[in-house]
Amino acid sequence: MNKWTDIANCIKWSDRVVIMTHTNMDGDAIGSALALCHALRRMGKRCVILIEDDIPGYLKFMHDHSGHEGDPFFVRSMPFDPELALVVDCGDSGRIEKRLEVFQSCRTKICVDHHMQVGSFADHSVIDPKASATGLLVYELINELGVEIDKEIAEDLYVAILTDTGCFKYSNTTAECHLVTAQLYAYGIDHERLATLIYDTLDMAQIKLEAAIVDWMEVFADGRAVISYVTQEKLRELGAAYDMTGGCIDVLRKISGVEVCAFLKEHEDGSFKLSLRSKGDADVNRVAVKLGGGGHIKASGATLQLPLNEALARTKAGIEEELALSPVSCR
Amino acid sequence: MNKWTDIANCIKWSDRVVIMTHTNMDGDAIGSALALCHALRRMGKRCVILIEDDIPGYLKFMHDHSGHEGDPFFVRSMPFDPELALVVDCGDSGRIEKRLEVFQSCRTKICVDHHMQVGSFADHSVIDPKASATGLLVYELINELGVEIDKEIAEDLYVAILTDTGCFKYSNTTAECHLVTAQLYAYGIDHERLATLIYDTLDMAQIKLEAAIVDWMEVFADGRAVISYVTQEKLRELGAAYDMTGGCIDVLRKISGVEVCAFLKEHEDGSFKLSLRSKGDADVNRVAVKLGGGGHIKASGATLQLPLNEALARTKAGIEEELALSPVSCR
Repeated sequence: MNKWTDIANCIKWSDRVVIMTHTNMDGDAIGSALALCHALRRMGKRCVILIEDDIPGYLKFMHDHSGHEGDPFFVRSMPFDPELALVVDCGDSGRIEKRLEVFQSCRTKICVDHHMQVGSFADHSVIDPKASATGLLVYELINELGVEIDKEIAEDLYVAILTDTGCFKYSNTTAECHLVTAQLYAYGIDHERLATLIYDTLDMAQIKLEAAIVDWMEVFADGRAVISYVTQEKLRELGAAYDMTGGCIDVLRKISGVEVCAFLKEHEDGSFKLSLRSKGDADVNRVAVKLGGGGHIKASGATLQLPLNEALARTKAGIEEELALSPVSCR
Repeated sequence: MNKWTDIANCIKWSDRVVIMTHTNMDGDAIGSALALCHALRRMGKRCVILIEDDIPGYLKFMHDHSGHEGDPFFVRSMPFDPELALVVDCGDSGRIEKRLEVFQSCRTKICVDHHMQVGSFADHSVIDPKASATGLLVYELINELGVEIDKEIAEDLYVAILTDTGCFKYSNTTAECHLVTAQLYAYGIDHERLATLIYDTLDMAQIKLEAAIVDWMEVFADGRAVISYVTQEKLRELGAAYDMTGGCIDVLRKISGVEVCAFLKEHEDGSFKLSLRSKGDADVNRVAVKLGGGGHIKASGATLQLPLNEALARTKAGIEEELALSPVSCR
């Protein structure tokens, strides 16, 4: 008996399995789901991954790992009645949205996740917030199931670990991430190709957008803060999609000596989504709360129903007020 | 007896040691030299690292690892007569330049390196081109010497491995890199701080330079190639130093679907340094050779004694000629 025994038994006794993960999928969600789907098919199960939103552009290549034409891994409606639901990288039934009915129709419900959560919506769960990525938990489960890992499964798990640790750079990276990665190398993964596709490949429009963000950037508060923005009109001019704006705040975050970064992007309805980041002692949660939003000390956000100039001015005033409370902390 | 026995014995029998590495130092050179210098001082040796050029900006923080005020690790002239010379990450006596006299004055000469080389200039060498970083070899040597690894030594070795594998992304990354990194975590290294300093911290001038490179970029050859440039005047306007131009070709390299990237930067004498990269089948060595330079199929360069417009035109013509020989290879 170990923490996986119940879950492994449920899987062994089920023939028809649906895998789900959270909407707004990331590399850990997709990699964990694909690795598990591969493994279960290797065990002779009928198994698909039920999704409802699109795979994000930078992970589109993961479709290569998606089985044969006639038997796709990702489906938007169930081709069979599942007995078992396996929810990975998602501990909140709210994040399986329209798929809740399929989930609830299953005789057995399992959750494997590394996010903090209150309570559980599954019959059997392994929730380990200390795991850097759900992919590490899925690796344990696949080993417990006795499935021989092949290159495809190993590459899916590698993408899960790589992306949730920010290419082994985030503070959540552990010795275990590196140990498991070393083991995955033994299956012949094309690690350079995967890392290049994920981290060193940008659409022309994306690279122009990021350059434009820097051109439009304003430095203020005696050089302690920067702010930039993008409007729907500018996105159209650059040929850039809205989902390319996700990394813009990180471009600003890289500038050395800057304590607070702010980025405003216009929604289609004309409101602005504000993202705030603090690299020093400043509490950007306080700034966000004053603007009607919230979040954490180091990362927060708000939605501003204001014209661009006013949104910029209000954000700058809030940041200046916050920075006035703390001495320079980031030089 | 193993490959380290002779070298370990030479170190044990020497009291005064000078460590050297190649000029134009990178993270593997500095990290390997510092780790070894720490270890030898822990053994009670007098030991310094003799350098002749500056530590590059993005690695300046490594000075934190450089011992006490009165006893610096990095020196530009020897404070004692060394018996033993340890050359790391450098297999070519030409790259220790002005320090050759000090090197030759030593009774014993040792080389630890992972570059390919013909012949050897040392009494004892460990040259392993299969090692991803010299830091991995130094890790073996320190273990052989029986020195207990501490946080500082571990952080120096981490930087060596991290930088020579491009944050574990390059094709030279091996399972061993990840295994050794997992072991280094046990010494409490602040891996997030080091990775952020090296990969996610850019000077304001650098980030403006990289944005400008994208603004000035021209797409040609039916979208198969891009070219950009920077002049001395533009560098002055941006407040950017010449050594910040090193990463500019990599900015262009990230653009998806582009097969050949070219970057021209003006030297102080008005000539242009051309860098060429191929991501597909095109042979940029042939392009460089026609322009009076050379290199490899995937990476080459030349120096052009031409005004900017002519340098751009000649480079574009050369690339178009090369691309006409091969079908689209990178979409």
